[in-house]
Amino acid sequence: MEKIANRVSTIKGSAIREIFKVLANGNIISFAGGAPDPALFPADLMSDLAAGILKNEGALALSYGITEGYNPLKEEIIKRLKRQNIISENDNFIITTGGQQVIDLAAKSLVNEFDKVVVEDPSFIGGLNSFRSYNAILIPAPVLDDGLDLDYLEEKILKKEKIKLLYTIPTFQNPSGITMSLEKRKNLLDLAEKYDFLILEDNPYGELRFMGEDIPTIKSLDKLGRVIYAGSLSKVLSPGLRIGFCAADKNILEKMIVCKQVSDVHTPVLNQMLAHRVLCSMDFDKHIQKAQKLYGEKCAHMLACMDKYFPQGVKYTRPEGGIFIWVDLKKDIDTKELLKVAVERGVAFVPGATCMVDIEKPSNKLRLNYSLSTFEQIEKGIKILAEIL
Amino acid sequence: MEKIANRVSTIKGSAIREIFKVLANGNIISFAGGAPDPALFPADLMSDLAAGILKNEGALALSYGITEGYNPLKEEIIKRLKRQNIISENDNFIITTGGQQVIDLAAKSLVNEFDKVVVEDPSFIGGLNSFRSYNAILIPAPVLDDGLDLDYLEEKILKKEKIKLLYTIPTFQNPSGITMSLEKRKNLLDLAEKYDFLILEDNPYGELRFMGEDIPTIKSLDKLGRVIYAGSLSKVLSPGLRIGFCAADKNILEKMIVCKQVSDVHTPVLNQMLAHRVLCSMDFDKHIQKAQKLYGEKCAHMLACMDKYFPQGVKYTRPEGGIFIWVDLKKDIDTKELLKVAVERGVAFVPGATCMVDIEKPSNKLRLNYSLSTFEQIEKGIKILAEIL
Repeated sequence: MEKIANRVSTIKGSAIREIFKVLANGNIISFAGGAPDPALFPADLMSDLAAGILKNEGALALSYGITEGYNPLKEEIIKRLKRQNIISENDNFIITTGGQQVIDLAAKSLVNEFDKVVVEDPSFIGGLNSFRSYNAILIPAPVLDDGLDLDYLEEKILKKEKIKLLYTIPTFQNPSGITMSLEKRKNLLDLAEKYDFLILEDNPYGELRFMGEDIPTIKSLDKLGRVIYAGSLSKVLSPGLRIGFCAADKNILEKMIVCKQVSDVHTPVLNQMLAHRVLCSMDFDKHIQKAQKLYGEKCAHMLACMDKYFPQGVKYTRPEGGIFIWVDLKKDIDTKELLKVAVERGVAFVPGATCMVDIEKPSNKLRLNYSLSTFEQIEKGIKILAEIL
Repeated sequence: MEKIANRVSTIKGSAIREIFKVLANGNIISFAGGAPDPALFPADLMSDLAAGILKNEGALALSYGITEGYNPLKEEIIKRLKRQNIISENDNFIITTGGQQVIDLAAKSLVNEFDKVVVEDPSFIGGLNSFRSYNAILIPAPVLDDGLDLDYLEEKILKKEKIKLLYTIPTFQNPSGITMSLEKRKNLLDLAEKYDFLILEDNPYGELRFMGEDIPTIKSLDKLGRVIYAGSLSKVLSPGLRIGFCAADKNILEKMIVCKQVSDVHTPVLNQMLAHRVLCSMDFDKHIQKAQKLYGEKCAHMLACMDKYFPQGVKYTRPEGGIFIWVDLKKDIDTKELLKVAVERGVAFVPGATCMVDIEKPSNKLRLNYSLSTFEQIEKGIKILAEIL
């Protein structure tokens, strides 16, 4: 008997995370990850807070918690989301073990084997792999400068086949850095209603806008409970804590809770208490403004270096927020092969193919992250990449 | 279109965790949970350790980690498991977000929809629900005084149908408290080889023996890579931290790692570092001996109270370790109905039906936990239960 279940028999680990493992012990300049700058972590404050929690409320922090999440943290995050008009009174809400778990729970709760799920192409590999791991059929839809190509979506997909769910990162998309326009967000909701599908809105970077005007989340425009909203503290506080959250229709969330119960019972209580105390103890809006400023400067610096050093003809996005730039070499170069050369020269990036629905097809695109590296590393790394190109 | 995926359309949340939610704000004596006594948590030590980690290694603790787990913790746990002859050189090993995640990852990686999985009947509801949530077909096998009924297993199940996996808690089983004999463990492995199935050995309570002789784990007897071993720090250190682990054959573990990557990326780094520092900073064997002694005394106390107060004819197990006693009322009483009366009187337990494959069938059995309550609560609670009976 074949030991491995067919839902995961062909799926491979994230190439990005494999690179990450190699990088852990090297001196490589990594534009490959998607991590915030540790310089922004309020580690000293968190040290004091963690000590206090364990000393004064150790029994609570170390015991089992409830699956839906630690109530004070839930309330604190709900307060923030309501202030930003992201969720409404009707939304139910849970804490998850990182934003990735929202995708996983939504995929498991909603998508039958061989159900069709539309995804942006390119998209976040962790999202794509989560759907793949439940034997969903991924249908790629292109991303234009103002987000998902809705004409393509309706004409080439929705008019031809029944889809169950659409997965989108509308704001500072991973990997493209592109943001979907307000008009498109409204039209997408109309399409969801017309063709009866659900939308999973993944928004880990939404608060990291360093330029331009905020655009309402799709969730905030949704009056019919069609949007499952995934948020996270990973990019604005700490990824290692693994605190994400989900706002969704009651009936959907109920099943996601059951799935969470059998997945990890609950998100670690200490981490939830710590996140709660951080949100309450510091001016968190100011903390985010600091991150916006830093990433805005790093992004501008990387773009300036690319403008200066990259050969003519190479195209790239100019994001208004988030942590990624998407590069199109416009030449017949397989960036998977290019990566090997780059790593030898001491620079890493994410080859485009790993972000596509068809991961086997060679891609001349690549993803660059600017949040983690120092300004010096950015200049040095971009110079090296330019030389290779 | 039906919104909810069929794999979870009928599954319900754990009744135990629903009770748990009610209990969170009540004065009820709870024999319903499965939690360790918070008096055993080394909270002061952990307070100091967490403060030190965040102050001195904050960037590491708060950044993304690798999916397989924080290496120093892995090595420390592997060292313990090898000393106890639980794992061998050939086993691969990962850290998980609690022991529950091992079950979930194994179910997802190995079990196709409608594959047959043999489970002990009664068994751990979190395990049963995890298999249910992947549309596995559960086949119940009775548990005798010396563990799983192997004659029944071979004659009534294995000779008739192809099974993929057998899920067992051989040591101080949840909910029965029963331990599988060494001979049966060996014979079960032979059956796995003869009928070609895998064994998921769930062993969260194994170190909590307060009476009798240790029996080798099934994993330690397995020379053919048929056993996936699930362990946890939840019962011996802290459940709220959510640190579990899995030792298994390389090919199986590889797929479980991919599933973990799309589930929660990695177990929170701070928690892993904290667990590592605890294991290194204190005499952990002595800590476990303290737990063994306390739970041995609590178990003896609960049994003495039951012997004294319970009506004649009621039967119950006398475990040599772990945290549960399984009670057979031997009368035509539905313990789900009994629970309502008991909760009104201020005592909670787990009704037997929730631990069975057929959760709808009324059961005259119930599960009692003795690890969490105080000695006074145990006496008071058992007296109340006796009165109701």
